[in-house]
Amino acid sequence: MADSPNCDLKSLSPLQLFERVTEQGEKVRALKAGKAPKDEIDAAVRMLLSLKLSYKTTTGQDYQAGLPPKDLVLINNGTTKEEDEDLVDPWNVQTSNAKGVDYDKLIVRFGSSKIDTDLINRIERAIGQKPHHFLRRGIFFSHRDMDQVLDAYENKKPFYLYTGRGPSSQAMHVGHLIPFLFTKWLQEVFDVPLVIQLTDDEKYLWKDMTIEKAHEYARENAKDIIACGFDINKTFIFSDLDYLGTSAGFYKNIVKVQKHVTFNQVKGIFGFTDSDCIGKISFPAIQAAPSFSSSFPQIFNGKENIQCLIPCAIDQDPYFRMTRDVAPRIGQPKPALLHSVFFPALQGAQTKMSASDPNSSIFLTDTPKQIKTKINKHAFSGGRDTIEEHRKYGGNCDVDVSFMYLTFFLEDDDRLEQLKQAYTSGELLTGELKKVLIETMQPLVAAHQERRKQVTDEIVKQFMTPRKLAFEF
Amino acid sequence: MADSPNCDLKSLSPLQLFERVTEQGEKVRALKAGKAPKDEIDAAVRMLLSLKLSYKTTTGQDYQAGLPPKDLVLINNGTTKEEDEDLVDPWNVQTSNAKGVDYDKLIVRFGSSKIDTDLINRIERAIGQKPHHFLRRGIFFSHRDMDQVLDAYENKKPFYLYTGRGPSSQAMHVGHLIPFLFTKWLQEVFDVPLVIQLTDDEKYLWKDMTIEKAHEYARENAKDIIACGFDINKTFIFSDLDYLGTSAGFYKNIVKVQKHVTFNQVKGIFGFTDSDCIGKISFPAIQAAPSFSSSFPQIFNGKENIQCLIPCAIDQDPYFRMTRDVAPRIGQPKPALLHSVFFPALQGAQTKMSASDPNSSIFLTDTPKQIKTKINKHAFSGGRDTIEEHRKYGGNCDVDVSFMYLTFFLEDDDRLEQLKQAYTSGELLTGELKKVLIETMQPLVAAHQERRKQVTDEIVKQFMTPRKLAFEF
Repeated sequence: MADSPNCDLKSLSPLQLFERVTEQGEKVRALKAGKAPKDEIDAAVRMLLSLKLSYKTTTGQDYQAGLPPKDLVLINNGTTKEEDEDLVDPWNVQTSNAKGVDYDKLIVRFGSSKIDTDLINRIERAIGQKPHHFLRRGIFFSHRDMDQVLDAYENKKPFYLYTGRGPSSQAMHVGHLIPFLFTKWLQEVFDVPLVIQLTDDEKYLWKDMTIEKAHEYARENAKDIIACGFDINKTFIFSDLDYLGTSAGFYKNIVKVQKHVTFNQVKGIFGFTDSDCIGKISFPAIQAAPSFSSSFPQIFNGKENIQCLIPCAIDQDPYFRMTRDVAPRIGQPKPALLHSVFFPALQGAQTKMSASDPNSSIFLTDTPKQIKTKINKHAFSGGRDTIEEHRKYGGNCDVDVSFMYLTFFLEDDDRLEQLKQAYTSGELLTGELKKVLIETMQPLVAAHQERRKQVTDEIVKQFMTPRKLAFEF
Repeated sequence: MADSPNCDLKSLSPLQLFERVTEQGEKVRALKAGKAPKDEIDAAVRMLLSLKLSYKTTTGQDYQAGLPPKDLVLINNGTTKEEDEDLVDPWNVQTSNAKGVDYDKLIVRFGSSKIDTDLINRIERAIGQKPHHFLRRGIFFSHRDMDQVLDAYENKKPFYLYTGRGPSSQAMHVGHLIPFLFTKWLQEVFDVPLVIQLTDDEKYLWKDMTIEKAHEYARENAKDIIACGFDINKTFIFSDLDYLGTSAGFYKNIVKVQKHVTFNQVKGIFGFTDSDCIGKISFPAIQAAPSFSSSFPQIFNGKENIQCLIPCAIDQDPYFRMTRDVAPRIGQPKPALLHSVFFPALQGAQTKMSASDPNSSIFLTDTPKQIKTKINKHAFSGGRDTIEEHRKYGGNCDVDVSFMYLTFFLEDDDRLEQLKQAYTSGELLTGELKKVLIETMQPLVAAHQERRKQVTDEIVKQFMTPRKLAFEF
């Protein structure tokens, strides 16, 4: 059923929310001054706290009396975003800019912190080696509390990694590997355990898909994830549909989160409506719960309150903003985060990538020939219309998808810089740049396929069995 | 956050809902006539179906074009009930009538069926013995599809029983035993397995209580339930907090129900608001899921689609109306129901019973002396103000709580009838009637205490271990 437009929290601007908090504050003062009955005052105070929380969730800022919000606007739904603003939430990424989403603006709007040179240098000192090119090139560009994780790490205090995937189809493309490749590197350099959530329940709830299909995709996707090379002794991969029925610790954390988040809040954060099913409405708690080590009593030997670090694409941040908000109220540490940019579709950074369109990306099942054809035919070019013009004015790396893909997959910094200069100057033609990408992707995908073949059902079973991981806490 | 009053589904009367369905139907016809784009028509049709479902959930009737609802009003929230109507939902039972809730009206409003003499006679024939006095005396007074259960039973098709309790405190009173005493009788006469759900998660969500406390109360309450005499080989008792982490089958059914129920629907059925936590909003699916045998793969040896029969107090019906609505859409049989009246507080049928007020009922931990004092001091009397008046005009059994309690606990029909006549005629005084009740309750509670003492931790563990029950399906 459609709501009347004036009753949706999501239709309230941060300013309107600010006014609701202010009004409620005045009401509480009036009740206290008038010596109203205690339960009436208590109810008004609870409402005030709830409004303040909604305000904070929406704006990323604490309410301050007399200081209305200025620059921040709600990003999680269309109604309050400005015309030229990007739309980013767990189900939508939209931008009108060929360069892709404006990530600096996103950092301000989400209230996260930029991964700057200082932080990258600090990571380098902590691990004693060169940071991953995803960090050096700004592919992981934003964070929450990474400095705290490093403080703790330097004091020999342990942490664990948590990432995940929604198994919406059998077919994974190279973009899906980004968080996993980075997480694998983090696991290696920090030597920490890792949990990987496959939200088959989410996909069943959101898609027109049977529960069996979602569960099957989870196992298929697990094979591609395992093929990234995770340490079997330090990694637990789980399907929600399986693990929820295996661990009382997990459900207890879910229900704790569910007690501390209202429908108003998930409406504000995720844009849910009254017509959404109650499964969607309560799902955010299921993605939140693995942020708490007590969800995995087997893994951590029952030890609680171990710090969690979550590498993920920035569109998943709403889940963890909510989690961080709830954590202290249920006596748990807030998870830290490392956010990546989005992986562009072959057709360009402003196009939506779709697993149902095989031409929108390079898939992990593609043959060398398919890879070649796709790149030659579909990769959006930042080159000029004619060879003459290209030689004269040069190409534009900022919008060229082949170059973007190379920033993700070509590890050699010097080579990448050479390509950039040559393409920008017009010395390198689009066809030549595409050739470099083809020669980079073909062996990479072939090697993945080779590793995936080695992943037997027995290995999947081992990864997916709840067990103590090889790490002492 | 408070909603604007005009956006709550619950503030819509059945008539207003009827008008929304009619309008939407016209919109669909107009779109089709105007050859609108397919996705636009599809969206409008989906909205129409959703509105029709809300209409049905609210009124208990299918929408029929041109036939606005007349007699039925929504019972589940205060806003649409008439001034003199009883309020009955899983959290509230309120009536202004000293005789208690008007159950005949409730049957009409809930759309259930009365347990009439024909049905009672049919049960007698099926089981080959006299039906329980709870049936003979109208204590279990309403049902859904009990005739179908009997059809199946007569054709040697099996069914199972499901009942439950919300462990809100350690202290259970004699009224809490009613569904269990009746369920025990059903288990015996039909020789069927039984599952008993302890909703410790619900109590954690609704009350100001830690998760540990709710879990502890579940185990304590299990002892009192076991003391009713259930067959250990045919009964599985479970705490949600434990069992959800033990059975993937249970969680799968929960998430299936959650996919097929919207917030609008639970708003209409349970009166939830936007300020309620997402745990409450999704909880109804957790009480629904044990209605499906696939939630208990261990018990039923993986066999699905076994008919379920739920004996419960009528205030739990909203959960199962929702369950019955969802069942066919997820390929499961609808559970059948047997509804009981409410157990009155000592102070009278219109008073709210409270576990925190020890004088509001007889508790299972009361000593003989406490029972005597409570009944003498607090049991609301239907007698006259003076002995002379009482002898002359007689007492009123319809409002006398001692007599009401005797209808629950005095099994001897002839004796009860004698007492009724003697009290109504004025021959029996209030003090004498109370004495009969005291002498009935004292040995009953003492015997319960004796049986409860025999319930060791080992026995509790056996009842609460998921396992195959002694029954062939």
